[in-house]
Amino acid sequence: MDDMLGRRIRIARGELPADVVLRNANVVNVCSGEIYLADVALADGYVVGVGQPGSGYQGNVVRDLEGRWLVPGLMDGHMHIESTMLTLPEFARIVVPRGVTTVMLDPHEYANVLGIEGIRYVLTSGRDLPLSCYVLLSSCVPASAFESPYHPLSAQDLQPLVQEKNVLGLAEMMNMPGVLQCDEQVLEKIAMICEKGLVVDGHAPGLRGRDLCAYATAGVMSDHECTTVEEARERIRLGMWLMIREGSAARNLDALLPLVKELHPPRVFFVTDDRDPLDLMTRGHIDSMVRRAIELGLEPVEAIRLATYNTAQYFRLYDRGAIAPGFIADLVVLDNLQRFEVESVYKAGELVAQQGRLVQELTPLDTPLDEVNTIRIGALAESSFQLPGKPGEVAVIGIEPDQIVTQHIKLDAPLRDGLIVADPERDLLKLAVIERHHATGRVGLGLVQGFGLKQGALGSSVAHDAHNLVIAGTNDRDMFAAAKALEAMGGGFVFVVDGEIRAAVPLPLGGLVSPLPASKLVAQLRALDEVAAAYGCVPEHPCMTLSFLSLSVIPSLKLTDQGLIDVETFSVLPLQR
Amino acid sequence: MDDMLGRRIRIARGELPADVVLRNANVVNVCSGEIYLADVALADGYVVGVGQPGSGYQGNVVRDLEGRWLVPGLMDGHMHIESTMLTLPEFARIVVPRGVTTVMLDPHEYANVLGIEGIRYVLTSGRDLPLSCYVLLSSCVPASAFESPYHPLSAQDLQPLVQEKNVLGLAEMMNMPGVLQCDEQVLEKIAMICEKGLVVDGHAPGLRGRDLCAYATAGVMSDHECTTVEEARERIRLGMWLMIREGSAARNLDALLPLVKELHPPRVFFVTDDRDPLDLMTRGHIDSMVRRAIELGLEPVEAIRLATYNTAQYFRLYDRGAIAPGFIADLVVLDNLQRFEVESVYKAGELVAQQGRLVQELTPLDTPLDEVNTIRIGALAESSFQLPGKPGEVAVIGIEPDQIVTQHIKLDAPLRDGLIVADPERDLLKLAVIERHHATGRVGLGLVQGFGLKQGALGSSVAHDAHNLVIAGTNDRDMFAAAKALEAMGGGFVFVVDGEIRAAVPLPLGGLVSPLPASKLVAQLRALDEVAAAYGCVPEHPCMTLSFLSLSVIPSLKLTDQGLIDVETFSVLPLQR
Repeated sequence: MDDMLGRRIRIARGELPADVVLRNANVVNVCSGEIYLADVALADGYVVGVGQPGSGYQGNVVRDLEGRWLVPGLMDGHMHIESTMLTLPEFARIVVPRGVTTVMLDPHEYANVLGIEGIRYVLTSGRDLPLSCYVLLSSCVPASAFESPYHPLSAQDLQPLVQEKNVLGLAEMMNMPGVLQCDEQVLEKIAMICEKGLVVDGHAPGLRGRDLCAYATAGVMSDHECTTVEEARERIRLGMWLMIREGSAARNLDALLPLVKELHPPRVFFVTDDRDPLDLMTRGHIDSMVRRAIELGLEPVEAIRLATYNTAQYFRLYDRGAIAPGFIADLVVLDNLQRFEVESVYKAGELVAQQGRLVQELTPLDTPLDEVNTIRIGALAESSFQLPGKPGEVAVIGIEPDQIVTQHIKLDAPLRDGLIVADPERDLLKLAVIERHHATGRVGLGLVQGFGLKQGALGSSVAHDAHNLVIAGTNDRDMFAAAKALEAMGGGFVFVVDGEIRAAVPLPLGGLVSPLPASKLVAQLRALDEVAAAYGCVPEHPCMTLSFLSLSVIPSLKLTDQGLIDVETFSVLPLQR
Repeated sequence: MDDMLGRRIRIARGELPADVVLRNANVVNVCSGEIYLADVALADGYVVGVGQPGSGYQGNVVRDLEGRWLVPGLMDGHMHIESTMLTLPEFARIVVPRGVTTVMLDPHEYANVLGIEGIRYVLTSGRDLPLSCYVLLSSCVPASAFESPYHPLSAQDLQPLVQEKNVLGLAEMMNMPGVLQCDEQVLEKIAMICEKGLVVDGHAPGLRGRDLCAYATAGVMSDHECTTVEEARERIRLGMWLMIREGSAARNLDALLPLVKELHPPRVFFVTDDRDPLDLMTRGHIDSMVRRAIELGLEPVEAIRLATYNTAQYFRLYDRGAIAPGFIADLVVLDNLQRFEVESVYKAGELVAQQGRLVQELTPLDTPLDEVNTIRIGALAESSFQLPGKPGEVAVIGIEPDQIVTQHIKLDAPLRDGLIVADPERDLLKLAVIERHHATGRVGLGLVQGFGLKQGALGSSVAHDAHNLVIAGTNDRDMFAAAKALEAMGGGFVFVVDGEIRAAVPLPLGGLVSPLPASKLVAQLRALDEVAAAYGCVPEHPCMTLSFLSLSVIPSLKLTDQGLIDVETFSVLPLQR
């Protein structure tokens, strides 16, 4: 039994001094919806007492908050650390001083690259941080049979991790058809999670009516892909939890907040999903959602509840998400409530951040990933990019500005000497996806329109979801050079012109993540965007655009190492008939 | 894995017919707070689909509700079946047609009489009913060291039951001093429950400030003893769950509802605690609380949420409390929402009640308790009631009308031949508490004022909490006769005058509960009250009053088999100095 509990009871009674007493806090109470002055006593990392100011709590450390607001530490209910391209410690360094103390991670990018060890890596690197890192087990590796991850993850592969203390459930079940068709593996994954009383996250863009009922009946509990109030209302009506998602690209908060103001539903909370490092440094993280919600007219207590109490309730973390006896003392002190301006942050009762900085520097990460080059392309040659063709129509992937959906275009094939080639005059680049986990030599080839690039080749080892290499270019020589550059770097983004690297963003951790601090990474990203723009590139972040051209589950035409994928008919398509 | 799940998914999609389709239901949606017309499809005891009317769900059984309201089955978050004096099947027969489909039972009366087997008995007799019966493990048997139960229940005694499917946690932790003083047994019970992720119910009348913080810090999660908005607000602020209790005697709903209307807090739900059989038959059960809350101006959806969704959330029953895919199909059809008039009730998708009656009669209970006489008084004699005394003051228990607290009065001792005797002229009766679990012969003797009885003796085997025999009378002969009558009956209430039984309510199941239908039991209770009144009895329900005179944890003067207990100083008191 917990001897420390006896001590905490005595401290709560006022018989012993607390570890910390925060006096004159304007407590933002997510349970009662009120804000009032109180003294808050902490011991062993827990809140043990909340009493009227002057109620007599003494502490080894006493701090007078002078009326500053005190809110529970913020929680992000669904995010991918890999999208930040930062290590967990660097990520923590940025977000903890903003008041974020708990995150729920779906490490499916790492899982696509490293298999089950990718998930273990995230679990391990999330320890010993002033940020609680929970993991949801990636449910859809690969995203479809048309993608080639390092190793597909079955229910049996995931099973050993289900009992891990920091594993909260199954991550976004993107395989909606698999659920609806009662795919055995899918239902087995859901069952193994439900048996343990854990949660099953969802991802169901566009799902409505009876199919949505079936998806919920299967045990999937939430969705973060709603873009309209009507979709969101349908999920809440069906007892599902609405995750309001505000990422860097996909931004749904403004559109969905009216539903919160209308219904004040219990089953709703905030998530970021995917945030890039610049967005983290400027807007912020979950704190930016609270700030924005208040701007849009939501009562501060309710906005905060959507990033604390409700999230904890969904994940069944009963000792988090509120400032009350028995709850973990993850606390944020605010200089200004309306603007959610953070003055300091306590994690499990310890002061960890003040004035925008961590109090103590974090030890840089030292993990097996630092030693491993995950880019394996074997005997790839320039000739691997040759694409035989014939006169006539060819299917072309058409980029949509600021979207991850693509068009399925048919154009007259650009030919030279019996080979399909790029045609920058018509804004047609050759596109290649190179299998890079097992050096199989498999290369998918096609054409893409919309980059605007006049010379050179762009390459990325970030290529949702299987993260093989994706390269778009005006000529085979530069495309091959881009692939070799990525191999040498251990992965990342690269822009090559005339055989020379003009810009590069090394992401050597799994080919997904940088070991650098955010500011340096952002500088590298900016430089690459600028250089590419100088050569005619139209998309603001061309490598981000590139990174979605393999995502075989988003319509309508995509390219993987297995070939051109018609997402509407869900089949491999020949380039030409 | 669940093969039936695949079938339910198909049914939800509309590929197979449902077991039942309820068309044109006005669904009262506790998740969204809305009411709207829908068709509801049920399969395998679950809701699998909720769609627009005419959305095409087909069913083996189809029923057009013609716009009647559909609400989730009601839940009582805290009650004592023994207070109803009815068996669980008889109780179900009354409450299920009123829309109650789930109850949470603290069987501490049975536990005081039968030990751990009393809890097992309740678990067993709760099966196979059209009512889900959950059990909380009684935490305080005995209520104090001054009471003599059949067998005290330690943490080790309770441990084997923790894993039972229908056990949800620890029942009301009435031993507040034990918690605050870190009593080892108390903390062990709490720990063994918390370890399993189960709940710890509370009972903390009058607890405020730092001691309330300590009680919550210890892990106690709720309280049903609030009588004022201020007490209730304090609990909600401290993250505790407010159980609004409306019993037959203790009625707090009207006083506390304003707090719900002010805060709309997430952590609040309805409980009945103790309802007598007449109240059950007239006002009803949890349905009466919903009805009353609506009368008092609460929106119907919110009133219903307080008896469904919120209760399920507290107890971590994730598949109950709402009408949504994946939730158990406990459903109530209402002819009138405002007055909560029940038309029919579905339990796990089956029609179980219609027009105020169960569809199928329940098999009468046939359990070991029917065979056991739990009244064991051994060689008790009339002389056991003799109480030597001397001239001077004597401590007297003074009854307060309609209260369970008593006064500590000092009066001149009524004497005859060196013995303290009753003195009806001064409204002084002799009071006796006879140990009846192990025939120890232990008898506590004293005096009580306030019954008004002119002749005879009243006896009860219901005597909170240890349920020994408690007898108040004008003479030893009638008191002894009352004890013997109780022994012969196997327990209950009895009124004896001049050696003859004038009225009796046999409660042979444990000395607490009747095997009869409620109407017959109510007639017996009424008859006894009338006869006692004819002999001068002032309290409306004298045996109920009698049954609280041994409750050693409620101030200020009580009598147990161990003697007179001064509750203020928590010590045994001699009658005279």
